[in-house]
Amino acid sequence: MTDNFEDLGFAKLDMSRRERTGVPETIYCAGKTKEQLVEIFKAFKSKNSPVLGTRCSAEQADFVRAAGLNVKYDAMSRTIVLQAGHLPRLNGRIAVCTGGTADLPVAGEAAAVAEFFGAEVDRHFDVGVAGIHRLFARLEEIRRADVVIAVAGMEGALAGVVAGLVEAPVIAVPTSVGYGASFGGLAALLTMLNSCAEGVSVVNIDNGFGAAALACRILRRTQKHD
Amino acid sequence: MTDNFEDLGFAKLDMSRRERTGVPETIYCAGKTKEQLVEIFKAFKSKNSPVLGTRCSAEQADFVRAAGLNVKYDAMSRTIVLQAGHLPRLNGRIAVCTGGTADLPVAGEAAAVAEFFGAEVDRHFDVGVAGIHRLFARLEEIRRADVVIAVAGMEGALAGVVAGLVEAPVIAVPTSVGYGASFGGLAALLTMLNSCAEGVSVVNIDNGFGAAALACRILRRTQKHD
Amino acid sequence: MTDNFEDLGFAKLDMSRRERTGVPETIYCAGKTKEQLVEIFKAFKSKNSPVLGTRCSAEQADFVRAAGLNVKYDAMSRTIVLQAGHLPRLNGRIAVCTGGTADLPVAGEAAAVAEFFGAEVDRHFDVGVAGIHRLFARLEEIRRADVVIAVAGMEGALAGVVAGLVEAPVIAVPTSVGYGASFGGLAALLTMLNSCAEGVSVVNIDNGFGAAALACRILRRTQKHD
Amino acid sequence: MTDNFEDLGFAKLDMSRRERTGVPETIYCAGKTKEQLVEIFKAFKSKNSPVLGTRCSAEQADFVRAAGLNVKYDAMSRTIVLQAGHLPRLNGRIAVCTGGTADLPVAGEAAAVAEFFGAEVDRHFDVGVAGIHRLFARLEEIRRADVVIAVAGMEGALAGVVAGLVEAPVIAVPTSVGYGASFGGLAALLTMLNSCAEGVSVVNIDNGFGAAALACRILRRTQKHD
Amino acid sequence: MTDNFEDLGFAKLDMSRRERTGVPETIYCAGKTKEQLVEIFKAFKSKNSPVLGTRCSAEQADFVRAAGLNVKYDAMSRTIVLQAGHLPRLNGRIAVCTGGTADLPVAGEAAAVAEFFGAEVDRHFDVGVAGIHRLFARLEEIRRADVVIAVAGMEGALAGVVAGLVEAPVIAVPTSVGYGASFGGLAALLTMLNSCAEGVSVVNIDNGFGAAALACRILRRTQKHD
Amino acid sequence: MTDNFEDLGFAKLDMSRRERTGVPETIYCAGKTKEQLVEIFKAFKSKNSPVLGTRCSAEQADFVRAAGLNVKYDAMSRTIVLQAGHLPRLNGRIAVCTGGTADLPVAGEAAAVAEFFGAEVDRHFDVGVAGIHRLFARLEEIRRADVVIAVAGMEGALAGVVAGLVEAPVIAVPTSVGYGASFGGLAALLTMLNSCAEGVSVVNIDNGFGAAALACRILRRTQKHD
Amino acid sequence: MTDNFEDLGFAKLDMSRRERTGVPETIYCAGKTKEQLVEIFKAFKSKNSPVLGTRCSAEQADFVRAAGLNVKYDAMSRTIVLQAGHLPRLNGRIAVCTGGTADLPVAGEAAAVAEFFGAEVDRHFDVGVAGIHRLFARLEEIRRADVVIAVAGMEGALAGVVAGLVEAPVIAVPTSVGYGASFGGLAALLTMLNSCAEGVSVVNIDNGFGAAALACRILRRTQKHD
Amino acid sequence: MTDNFEDLGFAKLDMSRRERTGVPETIYCAGKTKEQLVEIFKAFKSKNSPVLGTRCSAEQADFVRAAGLNVKYDAMSRTIVLQAGHLPRLNGRIAVCTGGTADLPVAGEAAAVAEFFGAEVDRHFDVGVAGIHRLFARLEEIRRADVVIAVAGMEGALAGVVAGLVEAPVIAVPTSVGYGASFGGLAALLTMLNSCAEGVSVVNIDNGFGAAALACRILRRTQKHD
Repeated sequence: MTDNFEDLGFAKLDMSRRERTGVPETIYCAGKTKEQLVEIFKAFKSKNSPVLGTRCSAEQADFVRAAGLNVKYDAMSRTIVLQAGHLPRLNGRIAVCTGGTADLPVAGEAAAVAEFFGAEVDRHFDVGVAGIHRLFARLEEIRRADVVIAVAGMEGALAGVVAGLVEAPVIAVPTSVGYGASFGGLAALLTMLNSCAEGVSVVNIDNGFGAAALACRILRRTQKHD
Repeated sequence: MTDNFEDLGFAKLDMSRRERTGVPETIYCAGKTKEQLVEIFKAFKSKNSPVLGTRCSAEQADFVRAAGLNVKYDAMSRTIVLQAGHLPRLNGRIAVCTGGTADLPVAGEAAAVAEFFGAEVDRHFDVGVAGIHRLFARLEEIRRADVVIAVAGMEGALAGVVAGLVEAPVIAVPTSVGYGASFGGLAALLTMLNSCAEGVSVVNIDNGFGAAALACRILRRTQKHD
Repeated sequence: MTDNFEDLGFAKLDMSRRERTGVPETIYCAGKTKEQLVEIFKAFKSKNSPVLGTRCSAEQADFVRAAGLNVKYDAMSRTIVLQAGHLPRLNGRIAVCTGGTADLPVAGEAAAVAEFFGAEVDRHFDVGVAGIHRLFARLEEIRRADVVIAVAGMEGALAGVVAGLVEAPVIAVPTSVGYGASFGGLAALLTMLNSCAEGVSVVNIDNGFGAAALACRILRRTQKHD
Repeated sequence: MTDNFEDLGFAKLDMSRRERTGVPETIYCAGKTKEQLVEIFKAFKSKNSPVLGTRCSAEQADFVRAAGLNVKYDAMSRTIVLQAGHLPRLNGRIAVCTGGTADLPVAGEAAAVAEFFGAEVDRHFDVGVAGIHRLFARLEEIRRADVVIAVAGMEGALAGVVAGLVEAPVIAVPTSVGYGASFGGLAALLTMLNSCAEGVSVVNIDNGFGAAALACRILRRTQKHD
Repeated sequence: MTDNFEDLGFAKLDMSRRERTGVPETIYCAGKTKEQLVEIFKAFKSKNSPVLGTRCSAEQADFVRAAGLNVKYDAMSRTIVLQAGHLPRLNGRIAVCTGGTADLPVAGEAAAVAEFFGAEVDRHFDVGVAGIHRLFARLEEIRRADVVIAVAGMEGALAGVVAGLVEAPVIAVPTSVGYGASFGGLAALLTMLNSCAEGVSVVNIDNGFGAAALACRILRRTQKHD
Repeated sequence: MTDNFEDLGFAKLDMSRRERTGVPETIYCAGKTKEQLVEIFKAFKSKNSPVLGTRCSAEQADFVRAAGLNVKYDAMSRTIVLQAGHLPRLNGRIAVCTGGTADLPVAGEAAAVAEFFGAEVDRHFDVGVAGIHRLFARLEEIRRADVVIAVAGMEGALAGVVAGLVEAPVIAVPTSVGYGASFGGLAALLTMLNSCAEGVSVVNIDNGFGAAALACRILRRTQKHD
Repeated sequence: MTDNFEDLGFAKLDMSRRERTGVPETIYCAGKTKEQLVEIFKAFKSKNSPVLGTRCSAEQADFVRAAGLNVKYDAMSRTIVLQAGHLPRLNGRIAVCTGGTADLPVAGEAAAVAEFFGAEVDRHFDVGVAGIHRLFARLEEIRRADVVIAVAGMEGALAGVVAGLVEAPVIAVPTSVGYGASFGGLAALLTMLNSCAEGVSVVNIDNGFGAAALACRILRRTQKHD
Repeated sequence: MTDNFEDLGFAKLDMSRRERTGVPETIYCAGKTKEQLVEIFKAFKSKNSPVLGTRCSAEQADFVRAAGLNVKYDAMSRTIVLQAGHLPRLNGRIAVCTGGTADLPVAGEAAAVAEFFGAEVDRHFDVGVAGIHRLFARLEEIRRADVVIAVAGMEGALAGVVAGLVEAPVIAVPTSVGYGASFGGLAALLTMLNSCAEGVSVVNIDNGFGAAALACRILRRTQKHD
C-alpha cells in the first residue's frame, strides 16, 4: 500500500486517484475555510487533476473564483467543479427521482456527482407518491435506468414504491425536508430502511454524494463485465 | 352531568351509554383478570346491553364462555362480543385496507369494532405499496367508501398513497409489524404523520379500535345531516 | 389518469383541481423562493383559479404583492390567499380550539385553510385544561361543531379531554410550543396519540393545514349524503 | 456522620433509621433472592424494627412467610410489611388518584407506603380525564387532601388537570400502562413534565414508592410547624 | 365555577386570583409581543394587582418600562415584576442550590418567583457534586430549609445527593446546561428521575418557575396547619 | 399491469414471477401459521415453482416436512427451500463478510438467498475490525467480488473499512448482535449510515434477505450489459 | 502481521496471545452453543493456555464441566475460568465500587476479569451516593487504588462523585439496573458521560469486562515504566 | 476537607490546586461573560497560578488581552493559557489521533490541555479508517504512546480499530462532526461505546478536555510507580 496522498497539513489529498482507479477526487467543502479550499483546488490544478467539491457555499465559490481558479459553481446543488484533464465515461444510465421540489438540492448533488464521475443521468423531479400518477407518467423512462436514486423527505415513501415497479437496484436518499415529526429526516430514513419492496438500500440523510458514488461503483461493475 | 357509571370497584361501567348516545359500550380486556371480565359481561347482560371487548386472549374468552355467557369470540382480531338488545345501524361504508398479511389482527379489530358500532365494512387486505398494482386492482371499490382505514406496519406508506387516490377521509393505523429499524411501529407511525397527501390523520400504533371508533363518529355526523 | 398538472420546472401545479374535485389548490410556501411564488400565483391568476399559500413569510408576501398580485396576507397564520372565481361552500361547522395563546399561529392556519375550503369556523382560543373552567364555558358551543380541531402544545391534553365531552370527530394538532422536555412538540404528539378518549386522531406537529384539509374532507362526506 | 448500617454482605441495612429519623426502613425486593429477603426481614425482626418491602413477588412473599416471619402481603400493590414496634402517625391526608384500572398496582404501592409511613390516605381510582365527570364527582374530597398523588399511564393528562383544580402540591406518577406510542410510560412522563398547570412535579415511571415517600416528607414538614 | 378571567383576545387574565387564592398572577413572557406585554401589565396595574413575568427579554422589559410602567427587571433571572397592592407572606424557608455557575439563570428564576410568592429564600450556588466539599460546607444551612430546590445541568447528580442528606422535600430542576450527550438537559432530567434517594421529584428542564410554584404550595400547606 | 397473484385469502402469491422476471419467489415465514406455510408451499409445488422462505423456525420447518413437502431447511440461517423447476444462474460473485461469530445467522440468510437467486457466494466470516489482520488476510479474495455484503453488529465498523479497501459496491447489514448501548442494532445502523468511505449503502437491521436481493439486482444489471 | 488464530470454523481463537502479549485470552460465551464452548475450552486446554469466559450461563458451565473440563464457575459474575500454565501478575491495585446490591453481577465480572489478568482487586460494594457516608467510610481505601472502576445503575452518579474525591483514573460502568426512565441503563450512561468531575471515562452498559480490560492496560503501562 | 476555593460570587476558584495536587486549574469559558473571565484570570495572576481556559471564543480572548493580561490564545483549539509559576512535567507520551480534518478543534483542545498538564503529545491527524493505509503509515509511532486519544466524528470507527492495534489504553472522543444520521455526534458515541476491541473507554461528545485530563491522570499513575 503506497501512500499517494499530498499532505497540506490540514488535509491529505489523493492526487493520483484518477490515474490509479479511474475515479476522480471529490472534496467535502463544508467546514473548510475559504483559504483551505483555494489551496486544495490549486494543488489539483497544478497536477492537471479534475476535482469536484460538494456542500460548497456561494461565498466559498466566489472566493475560489476570485483566486483565479476557473471553476464551475452550481448554487442549487452546491457543487463546484474544476475541469482538468480527461474524465472517464461510464456506460449505463442513472435515474435521479425526487418526491418534491424541496428535495432538489440533494437530488442535484447526486446528479452533479454522477455526471462528474462519467455517468449519464436522467432527472425525474417532483414525482412523489402523494400524486402517484406523476410517477406513472415517467415510469417507462425510469425503467430504462441501470440504477435508480430515489430522493425524498417527509414520509419518504418514494423509494419503496419505485423499487416495486422497476428491476434495477434502488438507492434511497432520505432528505431533511419536512417539519415536526420528520425530525430532520429521521422519518424518511426509517421509512426507507423498512421498505417492503426488495432491492432498496439507504444512504445517510441528504447524502446525494454517497448515492451517486455508489451508483457509479455499480456502473463500473457493469463495465467490467462488458 | 349525571353519572351513569356502575361502579364494580375495579371499573366504572357506563351501562346506559347506548340509550343515551346510541353508541354501545366497549371494554379493553388486556390487563383485566378473567374474573373481572366475567363480572363485567354479567353486568351488561343483566341490563340487556351489548358490549364488545378488545385485546381479549383465547384464555380469557374461554373463561367467560365457561361462566355461561353467550359470547362470540374471534381469535384473529381478539374481539369478544356479547350481543344484546338492538344495535344501531349506521349509513355509509368503511373500507379497511392493510399493507400485508401480518397487519390482519389490527385490521380485524378495526373491522369488528366498526361492525359492532353499526357500520358496513369492506375489507381490502394485502394491498401494500410494494406491489402497487394490488392496490389499483381494488381502487374503484375503495373509492366508494365514506371513510378509509389504512392499516400498515414496516414502512407504513399505504396511508399516504391511498389518501392521494381517494376523496374520503383516511385514518391511518401504524402497526408494530416489522423488525429492526421499525422500532415497534415507530417507523410506520412517523411515515404516516409525515404523509405528503392531505386528508390523513393517525391513531396510536396497533389501535384498530381507535380508528374504527373515529370512523363511526364520522359516519354518525353524516347521518345527522341526512 | 390524465395529468392536469402545469409543469413550471420547479413545481407541477394542479390547475384544474377545483373544477375536477371542487377543492381549490394550496401551496406550501416555505422553501420556495420569492420568484417561484410569484410565478406560481401568476399561473393560477391566469386561469382565474383561487389558491392559498401556507407558511408564507411577510417578506414573501410583500414580494408577491409588489409583483402586482392582489393577494390577502395574514401575518399571524402566515397564510396568503389569491381570491379568484367562485369558491365552494361546505355545510357544517368546524370548531378550532387551542390550549394557549402561543398555539394561535397553528390554529389560525387551520381556520384560514378551512374557510378557504368553504367551511364555517368557530374559534375557541385559550381554553387549555390547566384552567378547565375556560373549556366548560365554551362547551355548548363546541358541541355544535361537526368536527373539532384541538390545537395544543406543551402537555397537549386538550384533545383527549375534548373528545370525552363531544360526539363529533376530534382532529388533534400538537404544536411545537413549549421548552425542555416538550422536545419540539414530541410530548404533545405522544399525549394525543395515547388519548384515552375515543374519537381522536392526530396530524403532524404544527400541521394546521392538514387538520383543516381532513376536517373539510369529513364535511364533504356529510354533504354527499344530504 | 456515624454509620448505622448493618452490613449483611449483599446489603447494608439502616437498622436505627426509625429511632433516628422517625421514618421506618423500606426494602426494594425486585432483584433480591428469596434467601436474601428472609435474612433481611429476620434482621429487622431481631431489632423489633418494622420494615416494608416493595416490588415483592408472590413467590418471594410465600418464601418469607414459610420461613416463619409474620408478614402481611398485598398482591395487588406487591408490598410486604413486617409490623414491629410502634409506627409514627402523620397529620394530614394524602389523596391517591388514578386515571384507569390498570394503574392500580402503582397507586396501591403509593397508598401502602404512605400508610406504612403513618399518613392517612384517600383512594380515588378510575377518575381519568377521558370521562372528566368522574373526576368532578370526587373533586371536593380530593380538595381536602394536603398532598395529591396523581397516577396515570397512556396520555397521563390527569396530573395537570387535577393541579389546575386543587391548591395542594401534586405529585405525578406516570405508569407504564399503555401500548404502542406510550413507549413504556414515556408518553405519560413527558405529558406530566410539560404540565401547563403549576404545582406539579414528577417521579419515575411506576414509582409509587417515591411519590409516597415525598408526600410524607411534605406532611412531616407540616407537622414540624404545628 | 365563576370565570374571573379578563379576556384581552390574545390572553385571558385571572385578575382576581390573589383575592381568591392568595396567590398573585404570573405571566410567561416568551412568545408574546412587546405590545401584548404592555397591555397585560396595564390591565394588572389598573386593578392594583401585582404580577410577575418570567422569560422576559431585556428588549421586552425596556419596552414595558418605556410605556410608563414602573416594573423591576432582573436580567440574570429574566424576571419582571410589577409591585402592586399587598403581597402575601409565607412562613418557612426555601433553599435554592445549583450545581454550577451556568445554572444561575434557572436558579435565579426559581428564587425570584418564590420571593414574589412570599417565601424566604436562601441561595446556595455552585455546590455541585464534582467538588462535594462545597456542598458539605453549606449543609447545615441547607438542612434548615423547609423545601430544597436543586438546580443542575450536565450530569444532574446534585438532587439525589442532597436528598440523601436532608429531610425536607427536594424539588429537582434539570437545566439545559451542557453539551454533547447532555442532549439539551435530557441527561440531567433522567438522572434526577432515577434518583436512588427518596424524597425527590422533578419538574421540566429549565423550569425554575415550576419548582418555585410547587415549593410555595408546600409552604402554604404548612401554614394551613399552623 | 396484469395481476399474476394467486389469492389464498391470507396471502397473495406471485406464481409466475420466475417466468416473468427470472427471479423466483420468496416468503417471509415469521408471523405465518404452520398451516399457512404448508398451503403456500403446496401452491408453489403444484406450479412446479421454486420458493425460499426466510425467518423459518425449526418447528415450522418440521411441520412443512411432515406435510410431505420435500424442503431443505438450514437451522443456522433459518431458511427453507423448495427446489422446483430450473433456477436462473447469475454471473458474478458476492462476498459475504461478517464482523463476528454471532452475525452468522444474518450472513447465512444473505448467502442462502443469494445462492437461491443464482449467485456465486464467497463467505468470509469473523473478519471484524477489532483484529484487522483477519480482514487483510482475506482482502485479495474479497476484492474479487462484484458486490460485497458486510454484516456486523455492535460497533458495525466493518462496512466502512471494507469500502475503503475494495472498488465494488458494498451493502452494509447492521445486526442486532450486542448489548447495552447497541440498542438492538441501532448503533451499528448509525455507524454504517455515517460511513466516511464512499460506496456503502445500508439495509434494515438483520435484513440479510434484503442485502442479497439488492446484490442480485446489481448482478442482473451486470448481465444485461454482457 | 502473522496470524496466530486457530480457526474452529465458527470462531478464530488467538492461542498464542499470552505468549505474545502477556495477556491471556477471554471468550464471550453469550450466543455460543454449549457444544461450541466445549470445543473452545478443549482447544485452549490442549495448548495449556488459560482462558476466561464471560456471560456464561449456569447451564453452559454445567455442560462444559460435564465434558470433563476442570473449570471454575462463579454464578454471580457469570464467569468461567480454565486455569492453565502460568498467569501474569500486575503491580498496582484496582478498586471496584458499586452503587447498589443489584450492580454486583457487573462488578463481579469486572473483578474476576481483572484478577484473571493478574491485578489485585479491592471490592467496595453498596457505596452509592444516596447514602454518601457509606462512600466516605471507604474513601481512604479507595484512594489507595491505581485505577477505580465505578459501577452504578439508575442515576449513575457514583462515578462523578468518586472522580472528584480521588486522583486515580476512574472507569465508569453504567448498569441496566433500574426501571422506567432508566431506559435499560441509558440514564446512568448519560449521567456518566456528562460527569462534571474530570478523570472519568465510560464503557458500554453492563460492560464489566471492558472496564477491567482497560484498567489492566493502564496497570501494564505503569509496569512498563518501573 | 478544607475549602481552598476563592469565591468570586459567580464562581468558586481552586487557587491552591496546583500546590495541593500538582495539577493546575482549568476554566470552562463558554457561558461566562467577558467580564467574569477577566476577573477569573486576574485572580489567578495575583496568586501567580497558571490557568487554562477551554471553549474560549476569539471575542472573549481579545477582551481578556485588552484587560492587560498576558495570555496565549489558540483559535483552532479555542484554548487560552495564562502561564505563571512553574508547570509540572509528566513522563510518558500521549498520541492524539483524528479521523478527519474537521475533528481538529476537539483534538487540538485535547493536545493543548495535555501539554498544559505537562505531557508530551504526538499529533496524528487525518488517519481515519476510510483510508486505513494512512493509519498504518503512522502505526509504529502511535504504538510508542503510553495513552492514545482517538478523536473521530461521523462513523467514529477509529477508536476501535486503533485499540485492536496498540497495547496502550485508548480514550475515545466522539465529535459532533457529520450531518443527518450522525445526530450531533450520537452515532460516533454509540460506535465507540460498542467497540469490539478491548481497551477503549469513551468521554462526552467533543470533550477533548476530558480525554486529556484522564490521559494525564494515567500518566501521573505511571510516575507514581517509577
